Amino acid sequence: MASESGKLWGGRFVGAVDPIMEKFNSSIAYDRHLWEVDVQGSKAYSRGLEKAGLLTKAEMDQILHGLDKVAEEWAQGTFKLSPNDEDIHTANERRLKELIGETAGKLHTGRSRNDQVVTDLRLWMRQNCSKLSALLWELIRTMVDRAEAERDVLFPGYTHLQRAQPIRWSHWILSGAIAGNPLGVDRELLQAELNFGAITLNSMDATSERDFVAEFLFWASLCMTHLSRMAEDLILYGTKEFSFVQLSDAYSTGSSLMPQKKNPDSLELIRSKAGRVFGRCAGLLMTLKGLPSTYNKDLQEDKEAVFEVSDTMSAVLQVATGVISTLQIHRENMARALSPDMLATDLAYYLVRKGMPFRQAHEASGKAVFMAETKGVALNQLSLKELQTISPLFSDDVSHVWDYGHSVEQYAALGGTARASVDWQIGQVRALLRAQQA
Amino acid sequence: MASESGKLWGGRFVGAVDPIMEKFNSSIAYDRHLWEVDVQGSKAYSRGLEKAGLLTKAEMDQILHGLDKVAEEWAQGTFKLSPNDEDIHTANERRLKELIGETAGKLHTGRSRNDQVVTDLRLWMRQNCSKLSALLWELIRTMVDRAEAERDVLFPGYTHLQRAQPIRWSHWILSGAIAGNPLGVDRELLQAELNFGAITLNSMDATSERDFVAEFLFWASLCMTHLSRMAEDLILYGTKEFSFVQLSDAYSTGSSLMPQKKNPDSLELIRSKAGRVFGRCAGLLMTLKGLPSTYNKDLQEDKEAVFEVSDTMSAVLQVATGVISTLQIHRENMARALSPDMLATDLAYYLVRKGMPFRQAHEASGKAVFMAETKGVALNQLSLKELQTISPLFSDDVSHVWDYGHSVEQYAALGGTARASVDWQIGQVRALLRAQQA
Amino acid sequence: MASESGKLWGGRFVGAVDPIMEKFNSSIAYDRHLWEVDVQGSKAYSRGLEKAGLLTKAEMDQILHGLDKVAEEWAQGTFKLSPNDEDIHTANERRLKELIGETAGKLHTGRSRNDQVVTDLRLWMRQNCSKLSALLWELIRTMVDRAEAERDVLFPGYTHLQRAQPIRWSHWILSGAIAGNPLGVDRELLQAELNFGAITLNSMDATSERDFVAEFLFWASLCMTHLSRMAEDLILYGTKEFSFVQLSDAYSTGSSLMPQKKNPDSLELIRSKAGRVFGRCAGLLMTLKGLPSTYNKDLQEDKEAVFEVSDTMSAVLQVATGVISTLQIHRENMARALSPDMLATDLAYYLVRKGMPFRQAHEASGKAVFMAETKGVALNQLSLKELQTISPLFSDDVSHVWDYGHSVEQYAALGGTARASVDWQIGQVRALLRAQQA
Amino acid sequence: MASESGKLWGGRFVGAVDPIMEKFNSSIAYDRHLWEVDVQGSKAYSRGLEKAGLLTKAEMDQILHGLDKVAEEWAQGTFKLSPNDEDIHTANERRLKELIGETAGKLHTGRSRNDQVVTDLRLWMRQNCSKLSALLWELIRTMVDRAEAERDVLFPGYTHLQRAQPIRWSHWILSGAIAGNPLGVDRELLQAELNFGAITLNSMDATSERDFVAEFLFWASLCMTHLSRMAEDLILYGTKEFSFVQLSDAYSTGSSLMPQKKNPDSLELIRSKAGRVFGRCAGLLMTLKGLPSTYNKDLQEDKEAVFEVSDTMSAVLQVATGVISTLQIHRENMARALSPDMLATDLAYYLVRKGMPFRQAHEASGKAVFMAETKGVALNQLSLKELQTISPLFSDDVSHVWDYGHSVEQYAALGGTARASVDWQIGQVRALLRAQQA
Repeated sequence: MASESGKLWGGRFVGAVDPIMEKFNSSIAYDRHLWEVDVQGSKAYSRGLEKAGLLTKAEMDQILHGLDKVAEEWAQGTFKLSPNDEDIHTANERRLKELIGETAGKLHTGRSRNDQVVTDLRLWMRQNCSKLSALLWELIRTMVDRAEAERDVLFPGYTHLQRAQPIRWSHWILSGAIAGNPLGVDRELLQAELNFGAITLNSMDATSERDFVAEFLFWASLCMTHLSRMAEDLILYGTKEFSFVQLSDAYSTGSSLMPQKKNPDSLELIRSKAGRVFGRCAGLLMTLKGLPSTYNKDLQEDKEAVFEVSDTMSAVLQVATGVISTLQIHRENMARALSPDMLATDLAYYLVRKGMPFRQAHEASGKAVFMAETKGVALNQLSLKELQTISPLFSDDVSHVWDYGHSVEQYAALGGTARASVDWQIGQVRALLRAQQA
Repeated sequence: MASESGKLWGGRFVGAVDPIMEKFNSSIAYDRHLWEVDVQGSKAYSRGLEKAGLLTKAEMDQILHGLDKVAEEWAQGTFKLSPNDEDIHTANERRLKELIGETAGKLHTGRSRNDQVVTDLRLWMRQNCSKLSALLWELIRTMVDRAEAERDVLFPGYTHLQRAQPIRWSHWILSGAIAGNPLGVDRELLQAELNFGAITLNSMDATSERDFVAEFLFWASLCMTHLSRMAEDLILYGTKEFSFVQLSDAYSTGSSLMPQKKNPDSLELIRSKAGRVFGRCAGLLMTLKGLPSTYNKDLQEDKEAVFEVSDTMSAVLQVATGVISTLQIHRENMARALSPDMLATDLAYYLVRKGMPFRQAHEASGKAVFMAETKGVALNQLSLKELQTISPLFSDDVSHVWDYGHSVEQYAALGGTARASVDWQIGQVRALLRAQQA
Repeated sequence: MASESGKLWGGRFVGAVDPIMEKFNSSIAYDRHLWEVDVQGSKAYSRGLEKAGLLTKAEMDQILHGLDKVAEEWAQGTFKLSPNDEDIHTANERRLKELIGETAGKLHTGRSRNDQVVTDLRLWMRQNCSKLSALLWELIRTMVDRAEAERDVLFPGYTHLQRAQPIRWSHWILSGAIAGNPLGVDRELLQAELNFGAITLNSMDATSERDFVAEFLFWASLCMTHLSRMAEDLILYGTKEFSFVQLSDAYSTGSSLMPQKKNPDSLELIRSKAGRVFGRCAGLLMTLKGLPSTYNKDLQEDKEAVFEVSDTMSAVLQVATGVISTLQIHRENMARALSPDMLATDLAYYLVRKGMPFRQAHEASGKAVFMAETKGVALNQLSLKELQTISPLFSDDVSHVWDYGHSVEQYAALGGTARASVDWQIGQVRALLRAQQA
Repeated sequence: MASESGKLWGGRFVGAVDPIMEKFNSSIAYDRHLWEVDVQGSKAYSRGLEKAGLLTKAEMDQILHGLDKVAEEWAQGTFKLSPNDEDIHTANERRLKELIGETAGKLHTGRSRNDQVVTDLRLWMRQNCSKLSALLWELIRTMVDRAEAERDVLFPGYTHLQRAQPIRWSHWILSGAIAGNPLGVDRELLQAELNFGAITLNSMDATSERDFVAEFLFWASLCMTHLSRMAEDLILYGTKEFSFVQLSDAYSTGSSLMPQKKNPDSLELIRSKAGRVFGRCAGLLMTLKGLPSTYNKDLQEDKEAVFEVSDTMSAVLQVATGVISTLQIHRENMARALSPDMLATDLAYYLVRKGMPFRQAHEASGKAVFMAETKGVALNQLSLKELQTISPLFSDDVSHVWDYGHSVEQYAALGGTARASVDWQIGQVRALLRAQQA
């Protein structure tokens, strides 16, 4: 029988440590992102040790000074990793010891590496959520700026991708900006969680729950779901068939084969990232499922997920802002895409105002649509006589229905597509922007 | 060439409507859950129409009375669905018309079915989240009751499923109860979203975003992830090898083959539901990804997901409460599982208190563990002389280290496993319970 | 202290069995689908017991006769479930005992319920995969029929939703039918696994692995991903803006608000089901992750997933077949959507044939596109002189490039869009259809 | 109004190309993995062009030679990326042009970059699946070696983590190895798909379907699910409470805080990777869902997923092989964990052999278990008299039941835990290993 650490059967590896295992176990390749917050956390902890009488003032000063030196080396790119540095925490501690000697060993009195890992990640996320939040607000500001400048442009509203009713272009823009807003609120909740004003209630739970990671990944997934839908709309609006918008060259790519093509790669990449980001969220939840309580090494999966998703969100938000801010709209095509049958609901409302119950009016208007289709004319080209065969309530003033501008102005309720209502929405989003800056 | 609605090639179906399609399209099989909120929403809407001058007072009264009758029929189980009722909204409207005649047709002036669907679902979730919340608080209350009554029981704390340090049993219980608490807070956020005090800012967004559904499904997934981990712990603690706890018969099942078995089916089912619930969340996000804005029929997937997850959560929370409230603990086995090597960290702290830096003390304690293993004795059976070969700082008072009760009492910081600290945690959770009841 | 099975603290429930737990544990609500295969499996097993000498011939006959009676009751809808029937297996066994007495107790010698569960599910899936496979082939047959009849219709091929090159309509249809084909092959693999010709190699593995379930759910997810993409194409092609196809009324739905709308609900539902089906696959994998080996009650989640996904696939495949078989195409719109700039690649190839390296030719053709755009004319309206300012290789015969029919005929390689190539594809799929029927 | 490519409103970026977009769009950071297969594919393609008369023999030779030079530069690490190299294909083409001049431009006649991307990825996966397959077979070989050497070790079989019946340790090992085997077969299917013996049937489908990627990711997810379960078992078996196995130091890690700890980090990481790998599979399917047909930039997500999952699988398989090959088992603890109540099923079979129907025998054996528990003795310590109060069929020979070795030898059916059956399983797996090497 082989010795304890030797291999018993098969296997490629002989010796005390399997180098594949070492690499598999090591997290330094990605957790070096945490160098700054690791130093920050250790500085705070050494102050705590001094207060508790476990460090003298002189020892604390020595440690603080050493940690500043470590940070300086990272910042200047001169920090040298040694092959035995399995994670950022051991790397910083090893370097500290080289710099200040044995006193470094006192820094870790009473805290485990798991404590450090989770504290560092929380600190990093607090910093990073702020950055992402700023990018999100920048996107929202760009959208509301456009919405304000272009609020007189009408184009078809769609449901089921079928033309439905005329709406303002700004109304569409704000439907995205507003969907963005709750995400901002979510972030504030995250921040609230991360401000450490509150203490964690239970030590077992503190090192093993990763709700703050899962919630961040889910926020990102939901945010990306919204952005994937906005991207889908803009890809459609940019097809030859729709021709409502045109991407700037800065966000398009040509074809290697077809000289005439200009592809909306930026929007397609935004759409695709919804899958990647959600995949990270799904992966983390599967990793967490059924784990015994307290720390298990499985939890190490959290960091790469957070770093990758944070990078992805940062790029997506900036590209989306660029796309929206440079997008050209084709007003004439938008106007041309409006057609009288999109006023069929207005025609029904006309009858409702004359006293007909809505369900009957809907039916009557449907008959008019059918009559126009059968005759091969536009809905507004039916004569009054023809309309009166459907209902005697039709009279001369029906001609007022056939005005797109008038149509949208009917929807003056809050949230509607009337100019005043769109202005109100712009005002609401601007108020949020101001509140966020304050 | 066949006629427009005829089939051109192949296909099983001939005629105006494909019955498979009709069934595929229909949602009445599951959205009948919404009957009550649909009536509630329509009653509110008819009051709105009256205010807007679109219904007379008499018409409104007629509609309100008719709707009450519809509700009564559902409540008494006498409501008869007709084959053409494709969803709860058309069913209720059809019945209303039978009861009060043409006036019923006025009820839907200016609102689309999509408005109704999303309003009904929000109302239903508001009701239902309250019920789930009550069940969650009941579970938390049960856990804190146990934690209080059994706070003098010590047993091994584990990390990586390896015995780590002695902790209080109550400390474990509270790590679950406390992880439960943020969920309660989450629910309050959901409620805040659902109280309709705020209006939706944009009409396009209002009918097509399903954030409130996605967030509910994610809350449930995260809650189930926590419960799956608690279930895993209890399944382990209930094995012959651990023998720390015993499930009551009410939550166990025998084997059809092996007469001696008593299986923790309740806990295994709780653990498994984490997968099912998450699957619904994943499915909805995939359905939403890349959809064009506004309403698309794809959104119909939301309701079955919400109903199923709500039912699952309700059962899981009740079974978990039952399991915890009837669980027996085996105090002697818990005590027996404590061993002197779990005090190796305390041994290191002993040296720290004598002035040794922690990293050196950790190494010294590790040497003692190795020496004891080599000699085949327990850590606390090393003689003072033997210890002094490792460090001259060891003296007579090292014997005080070997006391489990003393060990746990060291962790008196908030969140720790000292009695006072556990009492404080119990107090915190009780305060939450009181706040929630008020 | 309360008695063993009593509740110790809190909890709603008092007594020997928690009714919520009973319901939570019970699977009869959905596993009754398995009645037929459960009887089939038990009949086979009783023959095995007789061969092994554990049943006499007379006992076997008694059991076989009893099981036939049980099956008859299920088939006629007269089987009465008792409140204690927790699953289909106990229900059938209980009823068998009522019918034939104590001999029924011998049927289960040497097999556990877990054996029964997994065998029944495998049998059910074998039956059901055959049905789904037939529906899939029906869809493929419908598609190839259309492809054959309509192979002379040209329309734009898109990449990135930008018009790329002219292709045959049949080429598009076959891209779906062909993507469908590997799924058929997959099914054969499943069937091979399910024919039970091979025995399971290890008894522990046999009851606890659920690869056959996971693979079925993944097959369904991938199949739905393909169908979601086909649905997306058809939804786009059916917009007013594209107007290439028109759904038959049998697969469309009107709007409750807008009289002129005809929505592609059938296609939207197909698209949405990709999410639901994948959600089930994701949920099962999460449930399996990290489970200890052999049977755990968690595995009970497999059946509902399989049943629901099987029902969904069945409806989706039939609706898709109906949609394709009744879909109208608008040939004139398809033709009108072709434009000379889609021949820019052909223009480059023209130069390649005159000896220019492709990358230069691509650039030259790109210049022509830009020149035409700048002058506001179609690409084919540039004069020869103008083209010659770009390259002297252009001569009179360039006019042959401007023929869509000629363009598609160039792609005569296998898999291309030339008529012969499309015919070959049709032939390949027809060969698969014939092979499958044999 | 700003110029076309300028920004209209807001946004951080001014100029012709947004650098964030450029980075977002670029894939060179990860697709450089493809350098070798990209050269390989281009060499094959230039031969094709020569055959088709689109390259002269001299041009082809020039290109082939240039491509060899490009490959040499990559292999030696001297290839210099230029800032404009957005992917591996443009990088190699750019370098080729530098090396051989304008002829390089002819290489891409008639193929698009999308063709190249998908061909390269298929070639890379063919190579890489071979490597992964070899690692998988190495793991299986290691397992079967151990199974053969340790087939006389008995220990408890568990269901629901409750002790069930005695089994051979080798039986457990083979339950993993055998679950591994179908994966090997799956790989062969993948390989069959990738051998390019068959041609893709449809050009639209060829560039846009990613079934081969999705199937690879799912194979990996399912494989990881199995490995996560094996890891879970070994983590449990390695706890102090079970003490059946001990990980070698090469695959364990100490605690930074607790000197006595040795944590099974290797197994926890294996378990956790199931989540990560599945997350990639889920992400890709979500990205694919609802995409229009043919190429969309969204498909670019495929490569990073494949590369990451391939790396993860490679590490996991090697670490798993190392863990299994160096694992120590504690035979005495395994033997000690066997207890007479695990023979309760054998006791029932004893009665079955005396003619009692199994269900009655099961009940009788259950009564014996209860009697022993009540009396506080082991099941085999009940006297014959006591047993006879339960059934008169008990006689002296019941003492033969209490022999664990005899118990396992009963399960001599194929797949059972008898020595002969385990030997047969070993033989089956060895046959697969031989077949795979041939």
